[in-house]
Amino acid sequence: MTLWNAPFCLRQSDQTWTYDGSLAMVTEDALDALDWNTAFDDMRNRETGGIGNPDEQRQVGHVWLRAPELAPTGDLTALISETVAAVRDFAARVRSGELKTPEGKAFTDVVHIGIGGSQLGPQVLVDCLAEDENGARQGLQLHFLDNTDPDGIHRTLSRLGERLATTLFLVVSKSGSTPEPLNGLKLSVKALEAAGLPVPGRMVAITMDGSLLHKQATAEGWLTTFPMWDWVGGRFSIMSAVGLLPGELAGVDMASFLAGARTMDMWTRVMDWRDNPAAQMAGTWFVAGHGRGDRNIVVLPYADRLELFSRYLQQLVMESLGKRLDLDGNVVHQGITVYGNKGSTDQHAYVQQLRDGRNDMLVVFLQVLQTTARDVQVEDDITAGDYLQGFLLGTRRALFESGRPSLTLTAPELDAYAMGALIALFERAVSLYGSLIHINAFHQPGVEAGKKAAAAMLKLSLAVREALQGGAKTEAELAEVLGADAMELHYLLERLVLSGRVARDGERVKLA
Amino acid sequence: MTLWNAPFCLRQSDQTWTYDGSLAMVTEDALDALDWNTAFDDMRNRETGGIGNPDEQRQVGHVWLRAPELAPTGDLTALISETVAAVRDFAARVRSGELKTPEGKAFTDVVHIGIGGSQLGPQVLVDCLAEDENGARQGLQLHFLDNTDPDGIHRTLSRLGERLATTLFLVVSKSGSTPEPLNGLKLSVKALEAAGLPVPGRMVAITMDGSLLHKQATAEGWLTTFPMWDWVGGRFSIMSAVGLLPGELAGVDMASFLAGARTMDMWTRVMDWRDNPAAQMAGTWFVAGHGRGDRNIVVLPYADRLELFSRYLQQLVMESLGKRLDLDGNVVHQGITVYGNKGSTDQHAYVQQLRDGRNDMLVVFLQVLQTTARDVQVEDDITAGDYLQGFLLGTRRALFESGRPSLTLTAPELDAYAMGALIALFERAVSLYGSLIHINAFHQPGVEAGKKAAAAMLKLSLAVREALQGGAKTEAELAEVLGADAMELHYLLERLVLSGRVARDGERVKLA
Repeated sequence: MTLWNAPFCLRQSDQTWTYDGSLAMVTEDALDALDWNTAFDDMRNRETGGIGNPDEQRQVGHVWLRAPELAPTGDLTALISETVAAVRDFAARVRSGELKTPEGKAFTDVVHIGIGGSQLGPQVLVDCLAEDENGARQGLQLHFLDNTDPDGIHRTLSRLGERLATTLFLVVSKSGSTPEPLNGLKLSVKALEAAGLPVPGRMVAITMDGSLLHKQATAEGWLTTFPMWDWVGGRFSIMSAVGLLPGELAGVDMASFLAGARTMDMWTRVMDWRDNPAAQMAGTWFVAGHGRGDRNIVVLPYADRLELFSRYLQQLVMESLGKRLDLDGNVVHQGITVYGNKGSTDQHAYVQQLRDGRNDMLVVFLQVLQTTARDVQVEDDITAGDYLQGFLLGTRRALFESGRPSLTLTAPELDAYAMGALIALFERAVSLYGSLIHINAFHQPGVEAGKKAAAAMLKLSLAVREALQGGAKTEAELAEVLGADAMELHYLLERLVLSGRVARDGERVKLA
Repeated sequence: MTLWNAPFCLRQSDQTWTYDGSLAMVTEDALDALDWNTAFDDMRNRETGGIGNPDEQRQVGHVWLRAPELAPTGDLTALISETVAAVRDFAARVRSGELKTPEGKAFTDVVHIGIGGSQLGPQVLVDCLAEDENGARQGLQLHFLDNTDPDGIHRTLSRLGERLATTLFLVVSKSGSTPEPLNGLKLSVKALEAAGLPVPGRMVAITMDGSLLHKQATAEGWLTTFPMWDWVGGRFSIMSAVGLLPGELAGVDMASFLAGARTMDMWTRVMDWRDNPAAQMAGTWFVAGHGRGDRNIVVLPYADRLELFSRYLQQLVMESLGKRLDLDGNVVHQGITVYGNKGSTDQHAYVQQLRDGRNDMLVVFLQVLQTTARDVQVEDDITAGDYLQGFLLGTRRALFESGRPSLTLTAPELDAYAMGALIALFERAVSLYGSLIHINAFHQPGVEAGKKAAAAMLKLSLAVREALQGGAKTEAELAEVLGADAMELHYLLERLVLSGRVARDGERVKLA
């Protein structure tokens, strides 16, 4: 029985991913009707150094990171290649023990301090590739500080125990002024000082030249710094020093990772959607979701190592495509929602809804054919890995039979090369889709707005305490004096009371 | 400035969660117009022992687990109380070292083998509550096998190293026949046998009386078994032995966890939506999503410890509400999509889309006022935890100002009591919402269908090899002989080739 048979459904890249759109339930005519000329013109413009991010008047050059010879100037080509070499050299010196802590010991651990694009990429890389099939790490052990929750930061640093003394700290912030990583840095410095460990000789910064963080690292004499560039967005930075350094430190074959991305770039640079899986995927997103994101993308990787990949993709897709304005300034409120964890685990969670409930999603199956050479028989002639594939194919069929569209991406095995190719495939699909819906996929104005709103709340918290220096007041009096929203004020006060900085006195509050 | 002020917006339970619907953008009239009589009648019917799950003709009694005296018969009350006592006693004997491995050593680790409802609950509990603020564990260390990926299973078991010999194995499967946990069990047994360790004296089963797993445990003389009951669904089983045993072993205060749930039950049993936050939340989901789930629920917990909670909620909500038929057999394709990770991390990921993109979500903020007693100043009079709250309140305001609705749930601190209450709140909201949209929230017919489809694929994989015993064939010939879909057959063959069981010979394939 043939489920569906589109003529454009199966394309194989050199030893990496097979793209299978046969169950996507979109027609060739619908895909062919999209404005591919614009999408491919935009792609060529970006890749040759045009202004791909008009709102910020920036180039969009993350593809040059894996093909430096494509950079628009020889200087840039040299800069990229030199940075790759410098990262590799530094990581090799750390891993070999040549580069030591100030106390003369080899580094054993890395604390990576970053958030958003600076963090999810490295975490996905390490989670997927740092361990062999026996659970043995190939390089140093990485830990992540990715928030300003003091409880989470304390726990991560405390778990290091005595290995705090042999931990290398990577502080990653493009602007060098994002509060979360700066707070992570401050708490790490306090922990080091409390342990009597000098700070600069175990710190590395990855940031833009001239940023506040860069100045601090230079002034304090940190081990080294590596650059971030304004033509690489945070969510596209995994192939820059942001991903390369933690990857190399963790023992991941980053040369192979870059090579995989480069291969995928070549395959998906073809200016015919039929022969270009990134274009075919972007077009499928468009047709399936009516160009408005009416279908959520559900990522179902049947491989435990890919459990975090959906979160990486969620950031890549939603931060790129979730935009208020199109390129002409019209209000469009675009976006595609992405979520997912891992199959077959999720079949016992939300697949019930995918199959029977709202028909509002496009599922992306990720299939890895050779799960591990150490696969084990659980029944006659059937292994645990056969079961995993059985669940994937069974779910794929069950969703199709109940009218739910899906794509299937298949790799022979999951290594650094395949991961580089997979990430490049989605980066390129996102960029092409941005062109198809006529938005700027390379800025993130809403993130800046959120930072400003948070700063206003901290200012209000300080103003509360200043106002209480004049004596106890009721919440209503404070709200009026400060022109504050009653509920926001209430939450700030509750926290100040619980942390012992403000006390309640009947109906009134006062400084503690 | 007042953002919004609904008269029904702020309710506080005894020392647990405050419910704040003030920014939900739903009117009191719209909430009041819902069919609360039916919803509360259904609630009373369930809680007094009626058939709450009509398709399977089962009672729905998970609330009795935290209030055994409410169970419909004295026998059931006794059974629940005895099981709680037995779990506590067993865990105490393991933790004290009284109960030892067959080799006479104290247990140090637990491998929990389960999937879906049997797994996410324990994992959330442990992730949230097993470590103190210094990262120190209170009890044994837990590890989870939650899939049939042999690579993931190998890595988890291999990481144990020598501690494999002091590991207790919990095998959890209600039916006792779910393939993923059975495969996890089989691979664990192989690992133990390879290490020369006798199996039964380190195994515990949690399953229904009389299941295949129960029979195996009894026949082989496992350490003990604990019951699952047909009146507790997997996704509602965290307060049964399924959650209690791993929680107690990990050192979580499960008595307090049950007490928190019990308190929330009492608060949310009130038959007036204005005074019942579970009802108010369910009603808000209904009004905001037009009773069809038109808004995704985005869970934003501003606490690292709650990072997995959105996944727990995703299962609870989507498996309960994602249904094809209503109670009268009409095709309705219901459901609500749930996703989320943690704030403020996600502000650098998908909050860009929440704020600027598609207006298709209802955000649920989870606020913990006292993050840790060890909070640290990062600027004058501002701590890392103040920043965390600032980001929450800033994002809440920014979303409101761009017309995105939200709810805010606030707890003074995050302990076992608060977690029990939080889970009970959502369990009850899901049940009430099920009544409001007139579906059965307590079965999962789509999961069974997925299992059958997977079994058919495994059968096809065996049939391929049987067919090849007659000699080499092309893929087209095989597809015709077996009546198989060409693409499914191709994927099965690719895996068989890569794992060395089938070989390619030109256009044909043959047994290797």
